[in-house]
Amino acid sequence: MVGVSDHQVRDSNLEAGSTVVRISVPAVHSVCLPPKKSGLESAKHRLSEMFFPDDPFHRFKNQKLFERVVLGVQYFFPIFEWAPHYSLSLFKSDLISGLTIASLAIPQGISYAKLANLPPIIGLYSSFVPPLLYSILGSSRHLAVGPVSIASLVMGSMLEEMVSSTAQPVLYLKLAFTATLFAGVFQASLGFLRLGFIVDFLSKATLVGFMAGAAVIVSLQQLKGMLGITHFTGKMQIVPVLSSVFEHKHEWSWQTIVTGLSFLLFLLAARQISMRRPRLFWVTAAAPLASVVISTILFFLLRHKDHGISTIGHLQKGLNPPSANMLYFHGDYFGLAIKTGIITGILSLTEGIAVGRTFASMNNYQVDGNKEMLAIGVMNMVGSCTSCYVTTGSFSRSAVNYNAGAKTAVSNIVMASTVLVTLLFLMPLFHYTPNLILAAIIITAVIGLIDYSAAIKLWKVDKFDFLACMCAFFGVLFISVQIGLAIAVGVSIFKILMHVTRPNTIVLGNIPGTQIYQNIGSYSEAMRISSVLILGIEAPIYFANSNYLQERILRWVREEEERIQAKRENSLKCIILDLTAVTAIDTSGVEFILELRKTFEKRSLQLVLVNPVGDVMRKLHGSKVLESFGPNSLYLTVAEAVADISSAFKTHLCIP
Amino acid sequence: MVGVSDHQVRDSNLEAGSTVVRISVPAVHSVCLPPKKSGLESAKHRLSEMFFPDDPFHRFKNQKLFERVVLGVQYFFPIFEWAPHYSLSLFKSDLISGLTIASLAIPQGISYAKLANLPPIIGLYSSFVPPLLYSILGSSRHLAVGPVSIASLVMGSMLEEMVSSTAQPVLYLKLAFTATLFAGVFQASLGFLRLGFIVDFLSKATLVGFMAGAAVIVSLQQLKGMLGITHFTGKMQIVPVLSSVFEHKHEWSWQTIVTGLSFLLFLLAARQISMRRPRLFWVTAAAPLASVVISTILFFLLRHKDHGISTIGHLQKGLNPPSANMLYFHGDYFGLAIKTGIITGILSLTEGIAVGRTFASMNNYQVDGNKEMLAIGVMNMVGSCTSCYVTTGSFSRSAVNYNAGAKTAVSNIVMASTVLVTLLFLMPLFHYTPNLILAAIIITAVIGLIDYSAAIKLWKVDKFDFLACMCAFFGVLFISVQIGLAIAVGVSIFKILMHVTRPNTIVLGNIPGTQIYQNIGSYSEAMRISSVLILGIEAPIYFANSNYLQERILRWVREEEERIQAKRENSLKCIILDLTAVTAIDTSGVEFILELRKTFEKRSLQLVLVNPVGDVMRKLHGSKVLESFGPNSLYLTVAEAVADISSAFKTHLCIP
Repeated sequence: MVGVSDHQVRDSNLEAGSTVVRISVPAVHSVCLPPKKSGLESAKHRLSEMFFPDDPFHRFKNQKLFERVVLGVQYFFPIFEWAPHYSLSLFKSDLISGLTIASLAIPQGISYAKLANLPPIIGLYSSFVPPLLYSILGSSRHLAVGPVSIASLVMGSMLEEMVSSTAQPVLYLKLAFTATLFAGVFQASLGFLRLGFIVDFLSKATLVGFMAGAAVIVSLQQLKGMLGITHFTGKMQIVPVLSSVFEHKHEWSWQTIVTGLSFLLFLLAARQISMRRPRLFWVTAAAPLASVVISTILFFLLRHKDHGISTIGHLQKGLNPPSANMLYFHGDYFGLAIKTGIITGILSLTEGIAVGRTFASMNNYQVDGNKEMLAIGVMNMVGSCTSCYVTTGSFSRSAVNYNAGAKTAVSNIVMASTVLVTLLFLMPLFHYTPNLILAAIIITAVIGLIDYSAAIKLWKVDKFDFLACMCAFFGVLFISVQIGLAIAVGVSIFKILMHVTRPNTIVLGNIPGTQIYQNIGSYSEAMRISSVLILGIEAPIYFANSNYLQERILRWVREEEERIQAKRENSLKCIILDLTAVTAIDTSGVEFILELRKTFEKRSLQLVLVNPVGDVMRKLHGSKVLESFGPNSLYLTVAEAVADISSAFKTHLCIP
Repeated sequence: MVGVSDHQVRDSNLEAGSTVVRISVPAVHSVCLPPKKSGLESAKHRLSEMFFPDDPFHRFKNQKLFERVVLGVQYFFPIFEWAPHYSLSLFKSDLISGLTIASLAIPQGISYAKLANLPPIIGLYSSFVPPLLYSILGSSRHLAVGPVSIASLVMGSMLEEMVSSTAQPVLYLKLAFTATLFAGVFQASLGFLRLGFIVDFLSKATLVGFMAGAAVIVSLQQLKGMLGITHFTGKMQIVPVLSSVFEHKHEWSWQTIVTGLSFLLFLLAARQISMRRPRLFWVTAAAPLASVVISTILFFLLRHKDHGISTIGHLQKGLNPPSANMLYFHGDYFGLAIKTGIITGILSLTEGIAVGRTFASMNNYQVDGNKEMLAIGVMNMVGSCTSCYVTTGSFSRSAVNYNAGAKTAVSNIVMASTVLVTLLFLMPLFHYTPNLILAAIIITAVIGLIDYSAAIKLWKVDKFDFLACMCAFFGVLFISVQIGLAIAVGVSIFKILMHVTRPNTIVLGNIPGTQIYQNIGSYSEAMRISSVLILGIEAPIYFANSNYLQERILRWVREEEERIQAKRENSLKCIILDLTAVTAIDTSGVEFILELRKTFEKRSLQLVLVNPVGDVMRKLHGSKVLESFGPNSLYLTVAEAVADISSAFKTHLCIP
């Protein structure tokens, strides 16, 4: 029966005042050594926990060979999983959502390509091949695939730093495709080697700051198009961009500013509508295409007047040309291409995986991170050979896709088909589309990345996370995109190391009338036990903290002795270390326990260990440290330790 | 009374078969929110835990101003603490031990200076000023200060890589003094800024490997002296050194080899004696000086014969000349000097602090790490201006000092005085000392650094520590001293991150007849609770592991459901997360808890949290996550949670 306390009642001749009382103490349970495992077994277990936490092979268990093959094919090509059950009603939903995201993807594709300093058509190419591939390989049902703002910005800024896209357009294009190839190779290898956790090191706090910083940087870049400046700086940081804007004040064109602002206001208003009423998502989705159409018609009519507003100009018709011959595997900039590939690769992975997971959890299905990385990686590798640059799942378009009722990856196929039609027949129509409309579309898209309410929440919940967030934000604004990101990751890792290096230690006390021992600092009713100091260590004991713990514990003991002296209580006789939260130990930690026991022994204090967990127990045993402890030095719970020790030194314990 | 179980008995109409039973369930205690602290207070608390774990100011509390000043002076100049109580009997011990370590320090000083490619006399200068300073500033009573092998080797190899000590001896000397200055500045600032924990990142495992590797490298370098080779490689790695040795086989001189081997065997035998019988420590201590004396007399007598064995040659008499004018603050090699300074600084700190702590704990006094860093730092800063190179507490000489009965830092003063006499009067005597004797002394000294039994223990206790050790060892042997060290530190930090990224999760079960819940994997008697899955998370929940935990927990639930289906037990209704070992949480972790609750809600599973500790509770509360949980979702112990939930869903729980 649960909770039935059948504590063994033992005779303990404890003196309470002058009468002998009989108290019931709990039975003492010994700490178990975990079952013995061979080195191979334990290595196997550890590796499988490390690389296969989700046990992806569980579905293959107890299956026949043929079924295993089918399941294997379905694992790598999820389309075979859902395609057989595909129905007309599903297609209706996917058609509508596919057309909706296409109306968003076409103007955004062109705009993001400009953000990466690439020809606009590359953005459309990248909205055609990758979505088709993803619909075969991807396991998310709501991800809308294509170019995204962050990766475009980062690629643009990293490549432009070394190679000018206007002076050496062919070299620039080659480097972009090569970077895309390496992004894909990097992504696919992370997935294949099941190292997906590397993406987890970009914490949400870091990303909030990074994306807000990137959004500001991107928006500032759009001042070129919105103000009609022709001589703009190639730098990305806030200071040179703003000074460039004001230095070229004479280039500002009022026609551009007025037109640009009107469309920007229209787009922002349309964005507000769907934020207030999610059912009107189509207003937001259609607005960019509507602006493109309206502005193109307007400037087509004004084409003979000198309005001073730049337009996209001639675009080539036709499908993605092969670009494998453009890949660049030698020379000065090869390292740059690899670096750009890895950074854009990890950023686009982070976005794609996060978006996939978000919508999967909203619809109660699971997305396998490592599998997705493989899919996105293959998509980019193939993309680099078919004139596409880095693509992933876009947050904004996936949200529209979801709201528009997408049910499967077919919505991506519909979108790709629409882009196909555009590429084959509609390209000349963009001739008179003004560049300022692209700037307005980009600003509207990235403004949603500034999530100040998330930053406020970070401040409220965790100041250190807020610090990481701010480091990323200001790092991106004032130094550079890569360095801002590196600083923020560094701060996040430093926080982890700090927690390990300076672990919390707490004094435990008994909650009267129970066998519960809790932190005296948090639970005011918790009572100290006379002559016993109970300490909890709240971290693994490692080389990085064993010296600190030694100092800190000796200080606790010193303070306890001072307190006892001040209050004239019974002198300290025993230190109980509660190891429940010590989840791991290394050789330095084992050494620390031994050292502590020796130090206490010299002061005639007994050291008692409570509840070392499996691995810790194994190492304490393996290193023969426990043998140096006397009997009655190892207990399963604090309550049992206190009861047994107190009966051992036959002192009256003053728990009320 | 401790252990008296006064559980509140409640009426619970649980059906057991067909009869209604009355079982006692424990009273339910609510989880406390830790007392509220302002942001300032909590920051102050955190900073003081971070930088002042040992509360160095505690002695100043409740003291008058004058006493505070006295205590302050004693804190920075420990000599004022022990000097007033100094007595003749203490001096007797210190005199004997001081003379003993001087007999070791003089030949070692000359030898280690050669190891650093410096003139031999620099080694003696470094054994004079720094020990005097340390006796005033240092708080260890047994540390014997002077040049040490590791720091000498590292300085020699780092500087020689860029500047040849034979081609540009003055520049080399300038760089050595400048590196010493920066080592001192770095050490003193670590101490002053209380960043001493940086030293802790060199784990014992890393050091075992590093020192063994360095010992091999150092011994191989001595082949030059032992074989009498004149054209020796300037590189340090094992491969070029060995190939250089065999390429110059024709330079081997049998006279050198025979003489060298005889003295080496004599020294090694003397070393064995004191290892077997610690009381005969003076044999080991006197052996190097004896070899120097014997060999010098021998070669003085042979001085007119052509024996082909190189000797030290002329050495200048006199005390340390000032060297502040030799410091080098500009030019190409300034960066090299800083880098060398920082690396030798951190290595010599590690040795000095470790040695100090070892002897302090053997004698039950405490050494304040940060205070020691300040002392060692000042010693090196002053040293760099008085013709000394990097010095610290030497392990081998401190052990001799301790065995010879040293009681206070006066033994360092005695040693320095002996070196003073040597510098003033005895320098010409070294003219005929053969270089091979220095090689033999170095080999004998460093051979003790190869601690293979420690490596075997690492392998037995912790395979990952062994890996770090091997990385350091082979890195030093085959790549370089700095890179070997960097790899080993990287491996150690990776291990910490890995533990955080891939935390252990365990299934808990009830130990029949108790309220103890333990890991089912370790405790075979622990029983699962019907309809309830109890999971323990053994790590802080961070951005770096929240995705992993999500996947892993969903897998536990899936496996539990499969198990239940296979055994046809009651279906799963509730997941209890034991957060006892979750010692910290960040915003991603809070998000994870929320996400998990939503996921389980969709599957009609209840999520219950148990015992979130202080800081975790504060953040869960601050982020309003707990509000989204229903009532009965937060308990102080697993036992209370199980009891309360089971009475809530009125199912018979199958605890035998």
